[in-house]
Amino acid sequence: MNKYFPGIGRVEYRPDAGPEDTLVFRHYNAGETVHGRSMEEWLRFSVCYFNTFRYLGADNHYGERAHQRAWEDASHSLDNYKRRMIAAFELLHKLTVKYYSVSDRDMAPEGDSFEETNSYLEEMVTLAADLQRQTGIKPLYYSADLFTHPRYMNGAGANPDAHVFAYACAQVKRSLEAAKRLGAENFVFFNPRDGYQSVLQRQFFRDMSHMAQLYRMAAQYKDKIGYKGQLLIQPKPADPRRHQYEADAMATMHMLRHFDLDKQYKLYIKPAFSRLMSRPYEHDVYIAAAYNMLGSIDASDSFPEINSTSDICARDIRSATYVLKSVLEQGGLQQGGFTLGGRVRRESIEPRDLFHGHILAMDTFACALKNAARLISDGCFARSIQQRYSSYKSGFGERVEKNMATLEDCEDFVRKNGEPHLKSAHHEHFESMFNYYVYPPRQ
Amino acid sequence: MNKYFPGIGRVEYRPDAGPEDTLVFRHYNAGETVHGRSMEEWLRFSVCYFNTFRYLGADNHYGERAHQRAWEDASHSLDNYKRRMIAAFELLHKLTVKYYSVSDRDMAPEGDSFEETNSYLEEMVTLAADLQRQTGIKPLYYSADLFTHPRYMNGAGANPDAHVFAYACAQVKRSLEAAKRLGAENFVFFNPRDGYQSVLQRQFFRDMSHMAQLYRMAAQYKDKIGYKGQLLIQPKPADPRRHQYEADAMATMHMLRHFDLDKQYKLYIKPAFSRLMSRPYEHDVYIAAAYNMLGSIDASDSFPEINSTSDICARDIRSATYVLKSVLEQGGLQQGGFTLGGRVRRESIEPRDLFHGHILAMDTFACALKNAARLISDGCFARSIQQRYSSYKSGFGERVEKNMATLEDCEDFVRKNGEPHLKSAHHEHFESMFNYYVYPPRQ
Amino acid sequence: MNKYFPGIGRVEYRPDAGPEDTLVFRHYNAGETVHGRSMEEWLRFSVCYFNTFRYLGADNHYGERAHQRAWEDASHSLDNYKRRMIAAFELLHKLTVKYYSVSDRDMAPEGDSFEETNSYLEEMVTLAADLQRQTGIKPLYYSADLFTHPRYMNGAGANPDAHVFAYACAQVKRSLEAAKRLGAENFVFFNPRDGYQSVLQRQFFRDMSHMAQLYRMAAQYKDKIGYKGQLLIQPKPADPRRHQYEADAMATMHMLRHFDLDKQYKLYIKPAFSRLMSRPYEHDVYIAAAYNMLGSIDASDSFPEINSTSDICARDIRSATYVLKSVLEQGGLQQGGFTLGGRVRRESIEPRDLFHGHILAMDTFACALKNAARLISDGCFARSIQQRYSSYKSGFGERVEKNMATLEDCEDFVRKNGEPHLKSAHHEHFESMFNYYVYPPRQ
Amino acid sequence: MNKYFPGIGRVEYRPDAGPEDTLVFRHYNAGETVHGRSMEEWLRFSVCYFNTFRYLGADNHYGERAHQRAWEDASHSLDNYKRRMIAAFELLHKLTVKYYSVSDRDMAPEGDSFEETNSYLEEMVTLAADLQRQTGIKPLYYSADLFTHPRYMNGAGANPDAHVFAYACAQVKRSLEAAKRLGAENFVFFNPRDGYQSVLQRQFFRDMSHMAQLYRMAAQYKDKIGYKGQLLIQPKPADPRRHQYEADAMATMHMLRHFDLDKQYKLYIKPAFSRLMSRPYEHDVYIAAAYNMLGSIDASDSFPEINSTSDICARDIRSATYVLKSVLEQGGLQQGGFTLGGRVRRESIEPRDLFHGHILAMDTFACALKNAARLISDGCFARSIQQRYSSYKSGFGERVEKNMATLEDCEDFVRKNGEPHLKSAHHEHFESMFNYYVYPPRQ
Repeated sequence: MNKYFPGIGRVEYRPDAGPEDTLVFRHYNAGETVHGRSMEEWLRFSVCYFNTFRYLGADNHYGERAHQRAWEDASHSLDNYKRRMIAAFELLHKLTVKYYSVSDRDMAPEGDSFEETNSYLEEMVTLAADLQRQTGIKPLYYSADLFTHPRYMNGAGANPDAHVFAYACAQVKRSLEAAKRLGAENFVFFNPRDGYQSVLQRQFFRDMSHMAQLYRMAAQYKDKIGYKGQLLIQPKPADPRRHQYEADAMATMHMLRHFDLDKQYKLYIKPAFSRLMSRPYEHDVYIAAAYNMLGSIDASDSFPEINSTSDICARDIRSATYVLKSVLEQGGLQQGGFTLGGRVRRESIEPRDLFHGHILAMDTFACALKNAARLISDGCFARSIQQRYSSYKSGFGERVEKNMATLEDCEDFVRKNGEPHLKSAHHEHFESMFNYYVYPPRQ
Repeated sequence: MNKYFPGIGRVEYRPDAGPEDTLVFRHYNAGETVHGRSMEEWLRFSVCYFNTFRYLGADNHYGERAHQRAWEDASHSLDNYKRRMIAAFELLHKLTVKYYSVSDRDMAPEGDSFEETNSYLEEMVTLAADLQRQTGIKPLYYSADLFTHPRYMNGAGANPDAHVFAYACAQVKRSLEAAKRLGAENFVFFNPRDGYQSVLQRQFFRDMSHMAQLYRMAAQYKDKIGYKGQLLIQPKPADPRRHQYEADAMATMHMLRHFDLDKQYKLYIKPAFSRLMSRPYEHDVYIAAAYNMLGSIDASDSFPEINSTSDICARDIRSATYVLKSVLEQGGLQQGGFTLGGRVRRESIEPRDLFHGHILAMDTFACALKNAARLISDGCFARSIQQRYSSYKSGFGERVEKNMATLEDCEDFVRKNGEPHLKSAHHEHFESMFNYYVYPPRQ
Repeated sequence: MNKYFPGIGRVEYRPDAGPEDTLVFRHYNAGETVHGRSMEEWLRFSVCYFNTFRYLGADNHYGERAHQRAWEDASHSLDNYKRRMIAAFELLHKLTVKYYSVSDRDMAPEGDSFEETNSYLEEMVTLAADLQRQTGIKPLYYSADLFTHPRYMNGAGANPDAHVFAYACAQVKRSLEAAKRLGAENFVFFNPRDGYQSVLQRQFFRDMSHMAQLYRMAAQYKDKIGYKGQLLIQPKPADPRRHQYEADAMATMHMLRHFDLDKQYKLYIKPAFSRLMSRPYEHDVYIAAAYNMLGSIDASDSFPEINSTSDICARDIRSATYVLKSVLEQGGLQQGGFTLGGRVRRESIEPRDLFHGHILAMDTFACALKNAARLISDGCFARSIQQRYSSYKSGFGERVEKNMATLEDCEDFVRKNGEPHLKSAHHEHFESMFNYYVYPPRQ
Repeated sequence: MNKYFPGIGRVEYRPDAGPEDTLVFRHYNAGETVHGRSMEEWLRFSVCYFNTFRYLGADNHYGERAHQRAWEDASHSLDNYKRRMIAAFELLHKLTVKYYSVSDRDMAPEGDSFEETNSYLEEMVTLAADLQRQTGIKPLYYSADLFTHPRYMNGAGANPDAHVFAYACAQVKRSLEAAKRLGAENFVFFNPRDGYQSVLQRQFFRDMSHMAQLYRMAAQYKDKIGYKGQLLIQPKPADPRRHQYEADAMATMHMLRHFDLDKQYKLYIKPAFSRLMSRPYEHDVYIAAAYNMLGSIDASDSFPEINSTSDICARDIRSATYVLKSVLEQGGLQQGGFTLGGRVRRESIEPRDLFHGHILAMDTFACALKNAARLISDGCFARSIQQRYSSYKSGFGERVEKNMATLEDCEDFVRKNGEPHLKSAHHEHFESMFNYYVYPPRQ
């Protein structure tokens, strides 16, 4: 476990390190108890194989591969995939994380036939299982990559061609089996090509109903083989499609509910995608939590001013604090965790940049966890919410919540009570209070 | 009916008029049969009272009232509201439209008490009913204005104060009664203040469940009084709130479904709001139609490059043609129609600018209707869709659609049939074909 | 000085105050020395009269006036303007700021004629001068409001009508005189209506040349009357116009340079407007500073996810730290300062919300100042920049900077030295280092 | 000339072709005289080698290469580059265009050394010259590709490393020589990596001054070798950089002017990039034209709702009509032309999709040309502009334009003439008039 990142040891918690010493954690202290659990238990950090080991610093035809990786020749050979996996476990070990997030195509290349592809996968899963045993690391989630191969260029579950649909399903079947074997805590569906480029060439409802069939079959097969992972769907609004059907939390939940799948699935929210919809970073986390559908979180970010996916390593602790507040309030993510889904910039070409990026994101969420814990234990926000909604606790308000009021009752209430009293929302006061936890005053 | 717009007669269809003659219709020919119905029947144009008669060219503290209106003194006196209504009916009559879209607060000012407010409304509804009788014009939709009064600054149905909630409901009750009396074809809920400025001060699920209570009560009261209008909800993503709960079609349908209200409500889609979500103009129209929930349409637009509400009079016939394609494909909007929801710019200060704006929008959608009718009757797009999805018509694909397939079946299919054949989406070919209908070649 | 904000005293620095105590400064300690000067000297905070006293919580026709202000009847009477000014000085005094930023129309209403308008202004300037004497407070900038009156609906300096142009100039003349009398440190031009709604109706170059005439005349008149304030222009990309000619720092500097005005003017940058152009908050500050044209700063913000003006009170200390780094590096803003240009939300209706908003913004920039000071005195970033550009210090690089190289020299250099060595930008390392200063680790 | 696109002949003008026949021009009739010149002369269409032959349907690590091209093996072998060029000339010939736009790296691969790279280029330029002789086709512009190779990952002209700067210059030198040899009408600088990811790691002014050195040397060398092409710079706001220094027309012109280069350079405007800045498509075209700096145009588009580069084949004739209005008004583009810079979608995998895409864009601009010609010859817009600015023709207005007015004169004018009369901008009337030309009524 010291081959591809020479000179870098296991990353330590060193809150007293100087500004230029960035190969240490300043905030993340795995074993420290915060709000009743260790930081490690709350956060369950996971390295994203895809953005860490498949992104090699290419930029389409706009930029050739730039990253320098001793283990990587960019080929589809099994040897290359093996070296990559060994490098991955070295990075995981040195970062002191317990989980990785991975898909079938992250692990193994495609062969010339479905059989060959599966035998490659088999071989790589065996290697992964072996490395897992040595290190105690395992997948936070496993996934079927239904988007990089050209066969999925027009979609996977929602492809207008049933043949492609079948292929996607077969790949999901094998992936569920691998997920079981590797003990993946979750199984993620991410369908960035299931959407449209133009309304002229698609039948929306039919497309969504096909996706629902895939979800139904996957849930059945999961039960059949006794796999215990949580099924998750990751919404994304657009890119590479002009629009993706599972655009955000509400759209995905509507689809699940419409096709009666909301008991079997939860959401894997990437707050950075909320920014793509001109919404605050924390938006979809709160929406999913409101409906009790928040399963796991992608801890990356995007440049806030840019409405496209930039997948940067998270650094904005104020935004992350909102997210952690929601997670603590729902008592944690259960089988879920925080996947470190950012990727280093194309210009960060050295292997050690991978450490800088991961440490930056981990410290961002670790500091946010501590902020949120203080905020919640002080109780200021909880008290203000309680008071704000107090009129629903008894009398007329209680009858409304109990489904017992009519419009006539409401009119009666107004006749008796007249005009409501205007109450300031004190927005700026609450933002000040929030800043108290994010940027504590230093005396 | 010739007091406030002197020198302007009823607007005529004059396709041969020159470029500077913009007080005529070039495309809209009410009685002309297109795709089996008259243009008037398909389009059911309605003037938006709010943006036409309540917007007076003010720009917050950034710009004082600029519009010159002989009927308007900007006061809250009943006389002012009466003159305004008479001007409105003159405009409606001269524009040759059959519908207007109006709220209680468009019609009548608030008084010092709930009773006084209602008596003002009563008086104005009586005047409206009288003008309706004279002209044959009636409301396409009626609505309760739950956003302009400061009492609604923190929301109406989702206000954390049950007193405000009660007030909103009482207002809805009176509005349903007025809607019945005026024969409004639809009743619209538009809740631009029901959302959040910060996740710190709201309970999302509770807020949405309160809104659902309002919707439930409204549906019950509607049945009780025997009002036959269609209940509609208008989604909007944000502004004035940082986020509105009923953000788009999917979010609103999810809420309706979650609270078991999807049978009683349909959606009133404003395609310009899809632009605010970084989506194509036509997006929410197609999404709502996919779930059979498209009830009515707001025929305004926004500057496409600006991610905020600009409410311009529609002018982009290419975008409008997409919308009409969807409407024709679902056989029209039944009780719904096209509300002309744009507003003239602040700099368009003369009364005749109101005509220019409405004519611009009406011609835009009229031309789009003719484009869509040709496109559909030629059948090219229908045929291509048929062919694209043909693999779902029989065999394996049919079993998928019939809910009969398993992941094992899918794997078997792939084993037998191997790798799917890649099929070009021919995106540019279809865009060319679409342009054939929008910009016909001239020989 | 204790009439309109009863119960609120002068705001004190209390770094030990609890989270709910938000009527104190946690970071701003006026007299504390930071980086060689007092915080007060570096920041020169100024209250924005326009957004604090003219915004009354109205939302166009979308929302009626909501704010509760004992001094305000929303009329254009002189009495109302006087009460407003007395309230303003009470707020200024209690906030412990030394400056306010104000325009002619903030101070006094328009009369029925140019003469009457000027006599109102005269009377109000006299009152202001008197209050200034009592308090030691004075204008950070003075301005002519060339956008709220309908006469400016199509622009001021760039209005196609020379009559409106003349009016704008006359107003500027009177404003320069008032600025001199009140000792305003700067004079700001802000021209949000000088731009276009459509390219069809404007002559761009002519419009910009007219604006340049106004700037030329203003500079001449300033010299003539011996006014010593710095002339500033505030860029803004759009809204209320579809596009404003002075869209950003580069556009404004190009115009100034083209018309040979760059010696007389500097820029008043509102970083929140950089967000409207899909750029980082700090962008225009750095661009203006690069060309030595940074004169003053508006310390407000906008919701980062929304591409329109939201004018919130600044709260994002990370973003503010970038800004302060630039200001410290250029040795401060000379006659400029930080105008607190945010406005409280419509829902923040109580007078004390004005204090919450201002304190929030002041603490944001005060904490940012301390962060930037530590960052600069540690020297890590300066050293890394030095090293990064070191190849330009001697040899070939030096000849390039000295204007002495040719393409042939460059080719020779490459022939001799071959392929350049790739150097990682270590983006994530530097972001980590930056976070060290914004979110210091706590042991 | 019939090897790689079998079954496709030279594309013909067939305005009577049916909707599904999309391998014909419906609007572009090369020899037809419009507004005094042939369409071919006005438009000077050019195929973009980069997006047509180097984009192979890959999508970073998100999508593998999808396009099916008989001539292409995606290798860097000379043979592959030769086949590609032969395919290119076949496409050019069949599209009936006279120009292509090309860079050194489009033409030839890099070798292991600067010398080898140049010898490859030499060989390919010889082949191109030969194919040019056979076909009469030549470059509309030639360019040095200073962005795909990793050496340019941190910029070319603005790279902090003088070695990389030298390499870029050497490459420009060779490219100028090739441009001369091939008779390129223009030489384009496009610098998408010269900008910043973070303000922390760059010195803005120094960076821009280095770019200016490159421009100065290029202009000198051009004169030295007697190359007659027009030097052009293409602005772009961002992507792949967080911000590019040459962000838009105004920023680029400011830089040119500041470093005294505005006589030697003009702008190559891609209107689709204006959309990335939340501006109308036509914006930068009009801004560049206002300062007499419009040299050439990229005739692609982007999905209007998406704030990132989508490089679609243009299809929006309304937007294109604005562009052509400006081009006709300045009497054409001289040495410039319209480069067809769009690329077919990843899903458009067949070679014939390249034809669909180019025909779509050519017809879009051809129809726009005819629209603009009618609009201009009717004179309605010109007359309205004349009238709108008439007050500047004589008297006070004339004195303003002649630089002869003072603020005192302006005040005198206002004293004499009082309040200006408000004039409606009639925005909607003018938009209606514009639609008359874009969507002509059919009787």
